Amino acid sequence: MTDRIYNFSAGPAVLPLPVLEEVQRDLIALPGVGMSVMEISHRSAPFEAIINAAEANIRTLAGVPDNYKVLFLQGGATTQFSMVPMNLLTEGRTADYIMTGSWATKALKEAKRVGATRETGSTADTGYNRIPTDAELSFTEDAAYVHMTSNNTIEGTEWHQLPQVPDGVPLVSDASSDIFSGPIDVAKHGLIYAGAQKNLGPSGVTLVIIREDLLARSSKSLHTMLNYSVHAENGSLYNTPPAFGVYVLGLVIKWALAQGGLDGIAALNERKGGKLYAELDRTGYWRPTAQKDSRSLMNVTFRLATEDLEKKFIKEATAAGFDGLKGHRDVGGMRASIYNAFPEAGIDALVAFMQEFERVNG
Amino acid sequence: MTDRIYNFSAGPAVLPLPVLEEVQRDLIALPGVGMSVMEISHRSAPFEAIINAAEANIRTLAGVPDNYKVLFLQGGATTQFSMVPMNLLTEGRTADYIMTGSWATKALKEAKRVGATRETGSTADTGYNRIPTDAELSFTEDAAYVHMTSNNTIEGTEWHQLPQVPDGVPLVSDASSDIFSGPIDVAKHGLIYAGAQKNLGPSGVTLVIIREDLLARSSKSLHTMLNYSVHAENGSLYNTPPAFGVYVLGLVIKWALAQGGLDGIAALNERKGGKLYAELDRTGYWRPTAQKDSRSLMNVTFRLATEDLEKKFIKEATAAGFDGLKGHRDVGGMRASIYNAFPEAGIDALVAFMQEFERVNG
Repeated sequence: MTDRIYNFSAGPAVLPLPVLEEVQRDLIALPGVGMSVMEISHRSAPFEAIINAAEANIRTLAGVPDNYKVLFLQGGATTQFSMVPMNLLTEGRTADYIMTGSWATKALKEAKRVGATRETGSTADTGYNRIPTDAELSFTEDAAYVHMTSNNTIEGTEWHQLPQVPDGVPLVSDASSDIFSGPIDVAKHGLIYAGAQKNLGPSGVTLVIIREDLLARSSKSLHTMLNYSVHAENGSLYNTPPAFGVYVLGLVIKWALAQGGLDGIAALNERKGGKLYAELDRTGYWRPTAQKDSRSLMNVTFRLATEDLEKKFIKEATAAGFDGLKGHRDVGGMRASIYNAFPEAGIDALVAFMQEFERVNG
Repeated sequence: MTDRIYNFSAGPAVLPLPVLEEVQRDLIALPGVGMSVMEISHRSAPFEAIINAAEANIRTLAGVPDNYKVLFLQGGATTQFSMVPMNLLTEGRTADYIMTGSWATKALKEAKRVGATRETGSTADTGYNRIPTDAELSFTEDAAYVHMTSNNTIEGTEWHQLPQVPDGVPLVSDASSDIFSGPIDVAKHGLIYAGAQKNLGPSGVTLVIIREDLLARSSKSLHTMLNYSVHAENGSLYNTPPAFGVYVLGLVIKWALAQGGLDGIAALNERKGGKLYAELDRTGYWRPTAQKDSRSLMNVTFRLATEDLEKKFIKEATAAGFDGLKGHRDVGGMRASIYNAFPEAGIDALVAFMQEFERVNG
């Protein structure tokens, strides 16, 4: 009946089927509540239970220390590009941005509206096909914060260890596209933010994890909805939250816990990514774009010898039920986004399809 | 099986059952798409069709003139409290705010962060239990805009005709809690905004209808996500929109069209509100709080002789399956929110329950 296809979309992206099934089952009336989750007051006991469970499960899943707040906001990572400097880039200080691709560039653009910034460790010279080494990073002394993009959705690169930032300088990470794809050392961060629509749930909810002492930087002159401190004081309920999104996100986190937590998920992602990269490396027919040591396990980017061949591959793959393989319009080529919820069977099917494509068109 | 109750919540609020049924049916895979609406790229053809249809149906439903843009944003009306002055309150001008209750007060608070403001026509002296008359309104010459709150959710009052603003001064209306509850003359407004979670759909999407010439006021120095002009140029797709919310909102608008459009909906709301106010006026036992000429058809606020009696009523009503009748914590008493999707049968049932309560406790 439902006839689902293999969804390689970069985001919004595939969700776990058991989560969708639960959402569907309870869509019209939550058990014991008699209303849809979309219809209940955000100040009601049933919704309080939903948002509190989502937060508690995130804390369990990622081992979030007690001195961090977990916030559910709106506006996507793009709004965080502004809120981070508005709240954390205080007068007279400089924010350091590690330049690893399109999203880091967009983040920096908004920070420049707020105050002094500095680029460090840019890999623009090689088309952002790699993550900079620690030797390439030089930080501003007493920087307001260092901003990184943990996974670069468009360029297909990912940090495999955190940069060594100076003691006392908060590391801020845009983890939108690889959050909870494996263990994360929250305590090494000052702030982590992520749009939900890759590994967490539907678009329209943004997760922010912030170390409590940083809330003191939020000026009272900030607009209310742009002030982390207000959201933290009000448990993300200063105004009506994106309630349905928080509900689905909560179910996704529960699903992640049931996969063996972040260790279990990491093992699955390594197996999935390993199979696909092995195929890309097998004969030289396929041309993976990211440097080997910087490869993303979430967004696997690759090319073929000619754009015509790429078009043919994408067209035939789409027809065969592999959707969303076209690369981002800024870079072209192909991209297989294989987030946590992407099924391993889809990787096996794609690899078989690629082998056949190579046999016919090689 | 689903066992739904009567939901008088002020928001998030009751949705049309046929909409919930369609969402449930297609939750796991949209027909012909093979993915959930939560899983598809916002740049895909199926989502483009969804967002374009939502906009087109809003234009049809409300008769939106061609020189207005229809935007789907995030952050709720509270974010609009900031975006309106950030974009429209240009240097050297003053914004006039008509003070009709708690939400107008919150809107003004954010505007003060941006520039010069003036209060006009406040009904604070009578506890905001009425809408000011035209005679009470005095506007700033050449004001940047005049801000009004078309329906006051907490105080139970509603504008039944628009204020007479000076020629050339844009009227900005927070229509969150009565949008599309009846005909609306969009051309008399410069900007209309509304959080979705009362008459439009689930929380997490905010509708903005803005006259195109006003977009020229948006400074390039504004943060990207706070700039109306950027959202308008990108058809609400500058970044990932709250896709599921836009989808459900689109279904609610289609449902509204099927109710005979805004005329049909107005007739239904007048009948529903008429029945409830008639009961409130019948014997003097109940004490409606808003002045008769200012009564809201969306949020019907009333009291009883004592707080103890109010508590008893709310407790017994809740037990009988009438949920959400407790008044806002700032004002106390009772509030029956009866938005477009609230069924007339629920009004009849509540009236019968109230009559029995009066008989026993009168």
